[in-house]
Amino acid sequence: MNMVELIEKKRDDHALSRSEIQYFVGRYTAGEIPDYQASALLMAIFFRGMDRAETVHLTMAMAESGDMLDLSDITDYAIDKHSSGGVGDKTTLIVLPLVASFGVPIAKMSGRGLGFGGGTLDKLEAITGYAVNLSEEEFRRIARETGIVLSGQSKSLAPADGKLYVLRDVTGTVASLPLIASSIMSKKLAAGTNGIVLDVKTGCGAFMKTLAEARALATAMVQIGFDAGRDMVALLSDMNQPLGVAVGNALEVAEAVETLRGQGPADIHSHCVEVAAHMLRLAGRGERWTNLGETRADVERALRSGAAYEFFHRMIAAHGGDVRQIEDLNRLPQARLRHDLLARESGNIAAIYADTVGWATLALGAGRATKEQAIDHAVGIQVYKSVGDSVDIGDCLMTIHANDEKQLEAALELLARSVELSAEPVDPLPLFYGVIEAEDT
Amino acid sequence: MNMVELIEKKRDDHALSRSEIQYFVGRYTAGEIPDYQASALLMAIFFRGMDRAETVHLTMAMAESGDMLDLSDITDYAIDKHSSGGVGDKTTLIVLPLVASFGVPIAKMSGRGLGFGGGTLDKLEAITGYAVNLSEEEFRRIARETGIVLSGQSKSLAPADGKLYVLRDVTGTVASLPLIASSIMSKKLAAGTNGIVLDVKTGCGAFMKTLAEARALATAMVQIGFDAGRDMVALLSDMNQPLGVAVGNALEVAEAVETLRGQGPADIHSHCVEVAAHMLRLAGRGERWTNLGETRADVERALRSGAAYEFFHRMIAAHGGDVRQIEDLNRLPQARLRHDLLARESGNIAAIYADTVGWATLALGAGRATKEQAIDHAVGIQVYKSVGDSVDIGDCLMTIHANDEKQLEAALELLARSVELSAEPVDPLPLFYGVIEAEDT
Repeated sequence: MNMVELIEKKRDDHALSRSEIQYFVGRYTAGEIPDYQASALLMAIFFRGMDRAETVHLTMAMAESGDMLDLSDITDYAIDKHSSGGVGDKTTLIVLPLVASFGVPIAKMSGRGLGFGGGTLDKLEAITGYAVNLSEEEFRRIARETGIVLSGQSKSLAPADGKLYVLRDVTGTVASLPLIASSIMSKKLAAGTNGIVLDVKTGCGAFMKTLAEARALATAMVQIGFDAGRDMVALLSDMNQPLGVAVGNALEVAEAVETLRGQGPADIHSHCVEVAAHMLRLAGRGERWTNLGETRADVERALRSGAAYEFFHRMIAAHGGDVRQIEDLNRLPQARLRHDLLARESGNIAAIYADTVGWATLALGAGRATKEQAIDHAVGIQVYKSVGDSVDIGDCLMTIHANDEKQLEAALELLARSVELSAEPVDPLPLFYGVIEAEDT
Repeated sequence: MNMVELIEKKRDDHALSRSEIQYFVGRYTAGEIPDYQASALLMAIFFRGMDRAETVHLTMAMAESGDMLDLSDITDYAIDKHSSGGVGDKTTLIVLPLVASFGVPIAKMSGRGLGFGGGTLDKLEAITGYAVNLSEEEFRRIARETGIVLSGQSKSLAPADGKLYVLRDVTGTVASLPLIASSIMSKKLAAGTNGIVLDVKTGCGAFMKTLAEARALATAMVQIGFDAGRDMVALLSDMNQPLGVAVGNALEVAEAVETLRGQGPADIHSHCVEVAAHMLRLAGRGERWTNLGETRADVERALRSGAAYEFFHRMIAAHGGDVRQIEDLNRLPQARLRHDLLARESGNIAAIYADTVGWATLALGAGRATKEQAIDHAVGIQVYKSVGDSVDIGDCLMTIHANDEKQLEAALELLARSVELSAEPVDPLPLFYGVIEAEDT
């Protein structure tokens, strides 16, 4: 096999075989294929795409480039969820303890955020002492003893994906559907999960701006997982406006706790109930939680009863986090400055641009523009209104939590263009646009 | 400026500006842009192409990446020719002394061959002592004193092209029209020429297999030269069958000498008359050699009178070559084995595949498959027949000159599929398919 022939084959629109893809991924990870040949192949893939079989082969080759976690000592069925990312998306913090409270063991590795806001790990680090870097032994011990563990991703999982992602980032080859889908799924497959609920977001605050793009990505990921022998379902959800009220790390932890106590904002509450119900459906393997409507009701009960909150509390304690901050949310990091943004006219909310709110949060220091940047866990924005709400002049639309006057000013300048009002009544946005099951693809 | 943005711009089908192209070529040549970003851009160019302005900017940036030769101490109008390469193509050896014999100074740098057979330099090295590596001082001195010099290409000409070509070769990005055209033309523009006659070949033995491809390449190169202020003309010529009788280095030198004495095969003779007449037409700048028909007659006279041969002799002597090998062609390197290939049936020649003859010559050792390979100057093939000729059973079709029995066998095996006969009469192939003038593009 010869890398130039492989590049030319893809360039000329022929499908690569399993052994060709394994050759490329294996040799590239081993440093035997130079970056300049890999980037030429990635650009050819950008233009030519990959068919279903190629995409699965690429995903499996990347998953198998490092350790393949075996979670059978923790559970006989590992369930996971993945969100394509959005503004105010604290779903993971809520649904994992929620599902764990049903006796379904949760052993998840999560990532950090780059761009708008923090990732799940960044949010958890708003809690003093929460340890995200666990040894595999600690990870397994906490999972077995607590029934739930949520740590950072081991570097030994899918190293090919890590290496290729760095290269894609500097060669204009990020925005390729098979490359995006295989990158996400390779880490999931290596992490030892049996079933995965994908939460693929669409809208101005999501990576996939249109529903068609989101559907294509969701379909590709469901196909990969299915062909790799996993149970898969994808929910297509809205990311035109922020999810929930809180955007920013500590603010989102507080909102997650409120939601776990059954007192969260309606949209994030309903969103999490849906995701959790689908996770339970997969974990039930046709024996339990087969009726989605009944499962939703069970999940609602777990939120109201405190059972879900109990598992969150347990998880924080097991990871060494300061549980007093959970018990009393005022103990979470607080920003020095608070500024209320008021409505200057009356009307109906036609749009609250999630991307603009996201950039404003980044301007406050809640996210990182580069990998090295430190995160300010205290800052963020509370967005009280949703599309369809009516507002009167002087109503408080948002509260901005800042630690620096200049950052506050920068955020306010961005936020001035974040809300659109209409004189006419406006329909609220749906939470979900559809569900993609493996059998449909 | 940022290389990732530049890659994405081309990837998304936007034209790159002059300053963007200069940035890329300059920084890449200086080693400040890594190969993996350059190869991603090259692959994007492969898919998206380049418009006329971009191609000119790329060519100029590569030409200006090193020394720009100034030949004004040698001539006030430097004329050059370039062939896209073919089997049996010894045109350069013939037309340069031919044109020089008209008092037009020739100062040309030529390249080596890779693939089928040797390049012009390899052919000249069949003559003992011929020095191809001249200092710039020697190059200029010989040109001034002799009126003709033909040396190897200085490494300080268009180094960006050299570096990019090596990268293209290992990243599947060779076969891109703007990249091919700019690569050839950057070296021509850096070499200080005022006018260039392009001999673009088409057919199974050429890089461009179809007339449409050859026309596209010729047009792109004529446009580049014209936009860079050069006088340009391109001839589209046939390369379905070998040009002339001789294929192989020493054999081709001998045929060049015979042609320069007015005794060459009809096809190479006529081909060279046409190329030389166009070179004189450009060099005459509307004052001399304006009538192509009369110029052809002048050129024919220069071949018959010995004037052209005289300049070839002079050039060999000036370069330190053994002129006795020119005066007595039997002194040129001779192969140990000669094998006549006879017709096994009667008929009319329908095809003599130039590519197959080329591969057979390579099998004999006349060319190099890799850059490091040594060339056997003595070996080669004489092809006596042309498409349209009638043959009787037992007629000699070719003579194979070999130095090794195994190589001879390998060549014969290839040549068994090189000739096709037809019971019906067959039209001869044209020498030329058309002329492209700058004004037409």
